[in-house]
Amino acid sequence: MSVNVGILGATGAVGQRLIQLLDPHPDFAIEALTASGDSEGKSYREAAKWRIDAPIPDSVADVEVTATTPEEVSDDVDLIFSSLPSSVGEAVEPAFCEAGYIVSSNSSNARNDDDVPLTIPEVNPDHLDLIEVQRDERGWDGALVKNPNCSTITMVPPLAALDELAGVERIEVATLQAVSGAGYSGVSSMEIIDNAIPYIGKEEGKMETESRKLLGTFDGAEVHWHDADVSASCNRIPTIDGHLENVWADTSEDVSPEEVGEAMTEYPSLSLPSSPDQLIEVFEEPDRPQPRLDRNLGDGMTVSVGGIQETTHGIQFNTLAHNTLRGAAGASILNGELLLENGYL
Amino acid sequence: MSVNVGILGATGAVGQRLIQLLDPHPDFAIEALTASGDSEGKSYREAAKWRIDAPIPDSVADVEVTATTPEEVSDDVDLIFSSLPSSVGEAVEPAFCEAGYIVSSNSSNARNDDDVPLTIPEVNPDHLDLIEVQRDERGWDGALVKNPNCSTITMVPPLAALDELAGVERIEVATLQAVSGAGYSGVSSMEIIDNAIPYIGKEEGKMETESRKLLGTFDGAEVHWHDADVSASCNRIPTIDGHLENVWADTSEDVSPEEVGEAMTEYPSLSLPSSPDQLIEVFEEPDRPQPRLDRNLGDGMTVSVGGIQETTHGIQFNTLAHNTLRGAAGASILNGELLLENGYL
Amino acid sequence: MSVNVGILGATGAVGQRLIQLLDPHPDFAIEALTASGDSEGKSYREAAKWRIDAPIPDSVADVEVTATTPEEVSDDVDLIFSSLPSSVGEAVEPAFCEAGYIVSSNSSNARNDDDVPLTIPEVNPDHLDLIEVQRDERGWDGALVKNPNCSTITMVPPLAALDELAGVERIEVATLQAVSGAGYSGVSSMEIIDNAIPYIGKEEGKMETESRKLLGTFDGAEVHWHDADVSASCNRIPTIDGHLENVWADTSEDVSPEEVGEAMTEYPSLSLPSSPDQLIEVFEEPDRPQPRLDRNLGDGMTVSVGGIQETTHGIQFNTLAHNTLRGAAGASILNGELLLENGYL
Amino acid sequence: MSVNVGILGATGAVGQRLIQLLDPHPDFAIEALTASGDSEGKSYREAAKWRIDAPIPDSVADVEVTATTPEEVSDDVDLIFSSLPSSVGEAVEPAFCEAGYIVSSNSSNARNDDDVPLTIPEVNPDHLDLIEVQRDERGWDGALVKNPNCSTITMVPPLAALDELAGVERIEVATLQAVSGAGYSGVSSMEIIDNAIPYIGKEEGKMETESRKLLGTFDGAEVHWHDADVSASCNRIPTIDGHLENVWADTSEDVSPEEVGEAMTEYPSLSLPSSPDQLIEVFEEPDRPQPRLDRNLGDGMTVSVGGIQETTHGIQFNTLAHNTLRGAAGASILNGELLLENGYL
Repeated sequence: MSVNVGILGATGAVGQRLIQLLDPHPDFAIEALTASGDSEGKSYREAAKWRIDAPIPDSVADVEVTATTPEEVSDDVDLIFSSLPSSVGEAVEPAFCEAGYIVSSNSSNARNDDDVPLTIPEVNPDHLDLIEVQRDERGWDGALVKNPNCSTITMVPPLAALDELAGVERIEVATLQAVSGAGYSGVSSMEIIDNAIPYIGKEEGKMETESRKLLGTFDGAEVHWHDADVSASCNRIPTIDGHLENVWADTSEDVSPEEVGEAMTEYPSLSLPSSPDQLIEVFEEPDRPQPRLDRNLGDGMTVSVGGIQETTHGIQFNTLAHNTLRGAAGASILNGELLLENGYL
Repeated sequence: MSVNVGILGATGAVGQRLIQLLDPHPDFAIEALTASGDSEGKSYREAAKWRIDAPIPDSVADVEVTATTPEEVSDDVDLIFSSLPSSVGEAVEPAFCEAGYIVSSNSSNARNDDDVPLTIPEVNPDHLDLIEVQRDERGWDGALVKNPNCSTITMVPPLAALDELAGVERIEVATLQAVSGAGYSGVSSMEIIDNAIPYIGKEEGKMETESRKLLGTFDGAEVHWHDADVSASCNRIPTIDGHLENVWADTSEDVSPEEVGEAMTEYPSLSLPSSPDQLIEVFEEPDRPQPRLDRNLGDGMTVSVGGIQETTHGIQFNTLAHNTLRGAAGASILNGELLLENGYL
Repeated sequence: MSVNVGILGATGAVGQRLIQLLDPHPDFAIEALTASGDSEGKSYREAAKWRIDAPIPDSVADVEVTATTPEEVSDDVDLIFSSLPSSVGEAVEPAFCEAGYIVSSNSSNARNDDDVPLTIPEVNPDHLDLIEVQRDERGWDGALVKNPNCSTITMVPPLAALDELAGVERIEVATLQAVSGAGYSGVSSMEIIDNAIPYIGKEEGKMETESRKLLGTFDGAEVHWHDADVSASCNRIPTIDGHLENVWADTSEDVSPEEVGEAMTEYPSLSLPSSPDQLIEVFEEPDRPQPRLDRNLGDGMTVSVGGIQETTHGIQFNTLAHNTLRGAAGASILNGELLLENGYL
Repeated sequence: MSVNVGILGATGAVGQRLIQLLDPHPDFAIEALTASGDSEGKSYREAAKWRIDAPIPDSVADVEVTATTPEEVSDDVDLIFSSLPSSVGEAVEPAFCEAGYIVSSNSSNARNDDDVPLTIPEVNPDHLDLIEVQRDERGWDGALVKNPNCSTITMVPPLAALDELAGVERIEVATLQAVSGAGYSGVSSMEIIDNAIPYIGKEEGKMETESRKLLGTFDGAEVHWHDADVSASCNRIPTIDGHLENVWADTSEDVSPEEVGEAMTEYPSLSLPSSPDQLIEVFEEPDRPQPRLDRNLGDGMTVSVGGIQETTHGIQFNTLAHNTLRGAAGASILNGELLLENGYL
């Protein structure tokens, strides 16, 4: 028995990845696709400028794209994946929740709201039950669940492993982010060929807050944010997919790079359909991970780590994840799978 | 009256930049060009695979390339610029110094030797007089002066300004380095298109030691290294020229971004022929500096800074310099100019 | 006595190049800048997202940008440079001509109109006098002069030399075009990193018609188009500036590559301020010209040719020009200089 | 019963692709790996700098790499895949053939020898029987079979379809070739970032001769080359994989783009394990095929065509194939499969 799902913002870069991942999904069946103004009423094939290096799935090519409102989406749909601009998500997602839909959202709005679970299933699955608080407060039949920003997801699993091992107190992180993170037309070629841009609007703030919420503890009523001091510096570089990050973490206890590598390697994955066998792959080679070579590990759902070194104050390492798979579409789907496993669907 | 100069390693990426800069130089005249085995006896035009986007200067095109030994270099030469692989520099440079030549070297060997001045003229010109100690100890008529690694040069001028203002105690730096830093064939296209490499052999160590020597104090007998704790993480990205760096500096005193920007803007340049009018250009726009747009500021000799922000522990900023101009060829020439001004030539 | 000029579409990619070239121009003084809706009333610095790797000239930074209508442009202006989207150019340029302005336009509208001179000053300066026909027919005090499309300009000078030498009968041309040809946001980074696009809308038709008009003869009343059969195939590749083209030309007479190289080398330039000393630079090295190395030859106004070979039917060669300098902004300015020299201003 | 195979030149770019394709192959089992000097005696994992974006197969990681001589390769091996520099192939391949091995080679040596079959299985499988002539003449128990150059393979299948339909008389082809075609260190990043190179040594000659041999007819004794006049112009561009080509073909008969598209679409594939379901995929969208989006069609074995247009003299179209899969490793394996099917193994 599969769950019928709808995709809000189905024609964008993350929307296309959602379709690529959901088409062969064992538990979810695509039932509705929405997009903004111009696309309404068109077939998906017409509406989407399909830009993934695999053909558009036959199952969705002729589906009609509708407007992004609860009224336009079939009642048969049980779960909504949302990848909208945050200003649109802010307006539309609550309407879906109010109409009874469970929304697993990649949009950046509301991620830090007190009663909105922000989850990476392998890291803080227990936060999902914040839904109960949310429903109490908002009176929704549906629910709103968020996954974090792609650059946050790339660093949090290895930091969670390190935090368990040695206590993380202070984090500096520099990112080298792929252009797909900005959507299909977010970065023009004239901006980025033979270039790098040391600024991505609002990205640093997202990394600094979301990481602390994710690493925080949920006591059944609220999430107590982790008190690590996080400072991020975000850069765009000329890569298509895969965010690479240099992380410095001051730790409470002294630990060796070997211990850290072991803790990361052994950090457990889940048995959800989209979880990779190995959540964190630790490379011995100092020049790995690299975006083009390693972003597809574990079907794009593994986080790769390398270059683990001791510093005066703790540990330095590099981490990489596929930003539109593990960092966006796959993240939302994992949350959907966790919702299903935990009985919310 | 111009000073006759020779270039060791004249056919490489930095060697070509040296020629580009020295050809129109007011005080230096190219008299000798050396390169390794195959090039010996050829005209420079034949020996060098000229790769700069300006024509090869007529003045050197037909100069015969000789072997890299003091015997092969004319006695008319007073100053040697050296840009050799460190293993070659280690063997060859002392021979030139012993033979009476003053060597301004970009090669990485001997940079941290106690009696070798490592200088950025605008930052620590007084260290040059370590030459006296060197001559005493080594019995040379010549002298060996070094400029630091390109990635070090990119961050030290703004750090020097910040250190003067507020005291720098701890530094984390992530680099986004251009491929020219590895020489013409150092990074293959298959390694770097749609990719980034989070490792550059020995680069992190260079940044961590050289910066402390440069920011140190010279008491007439020895250089007392700055005691800041420096941790670098180095990345190669698909840019041709221009190293971009994200720097975090813990400071002894609280300072505002405005004060820091002002201190950097006002940090003095010199009146040497290759010094830029403005040593450090501070951008207000948060997305600057960018390699392709800003690397050529001040004829490639200005260091550009942007994104100055307060953190819990001090200041975060981004810095950029042209790695083969300010960071290599121009750095060696500036040292040559300082040698001339200070009467060593 | 300098001529006051205005720039229509001053904030775009070509508009910025026009400003870069006109700022130090000996005969032209920038007096008016126009742009579309949002930019109106702003200073140029605010309105333009300046993207050239040299600072924005002080002389224009604080100039107020006006709407693109004759009423908004000062009467002091004698010459208008226009680089508008063709749909806008079509509507606006005739209004300026009617109001008495002489318009040197890079926009693609009207290039093939019978009474509109389409000129490359070094190739077909005599076509400029089509202005007399135009004024007769349209009753304008002003005049409209066009330069061809950037990809056309890249191949026509060497073809003109070859045509004079041996008669050109049939042309096949494949282009490798830089992203700047599409404007700042014309090609997204996701479209072009690690990619090439074998299609540029309407570009093939422009090359096929404009080249024949340029190589045609003007008898004082009309231009008789050259009857060569031209077939173009246009590709976008990940270069910033510089269009590279592979050209096959069937010739009436047999000629050797040496003769062709000589004819191209000796093809005369003009003494206009923006004409390069050498119009066509012929490379002996088979792997030249290359966009990054050779696009700036002659301050970006030289056309570079290489790889000249005999084929069964004629000659094959490669040609390169800087698409936003020689191919656009510089082309319009050259036409302006020709207008001045020929007494139209 | 699988056939044991050896790979000569196993550590190079094509060697790695051979391993990637052969690891899961239904009929071939990797038994021997050879490489040059330094690699000898090392495990494959140590010897190869694995650069494919999928992990190194476990089955070969610990295989010992041997020297490239028949003596070092096990007698259990029945089929040799060779991807050596041509100078090495020239010396070594005959020795293997003499020693009784059947060699399916991607190396460029001997491709145009009268008694060496040069085959694309879907295009000219009958040429394989030239082996009989070869064995008669050379007295070999083994045999030498070649696949063409990657840029030739990209254009020949669609040309074969067009030739059958309308007779091809004259061909001009411009290529936009990926850097992987030159091997891992063949093109340096400084040569190709923001650049294109209009020359690939010997490539044009290969396309001009090999295409005529492939499209020729075999009468049981010799191959009569096709008499089309072929002129190629080859360019390197900054793409990782996938050669894109613009082809002009003069045809004997007038045909419409629709007829050509249909003939290409219906051109039959084979049922060999590595043959794609669809040999030639014809795109309607004028901007396809594109290297990054379409190179992996049919697991990298499909040839993609688009932009079919009528010209005055025939047909113009664009074609794309994955140069290290369809154009090299996959091509050699297909030939191996044809050898197996035809009873040579």
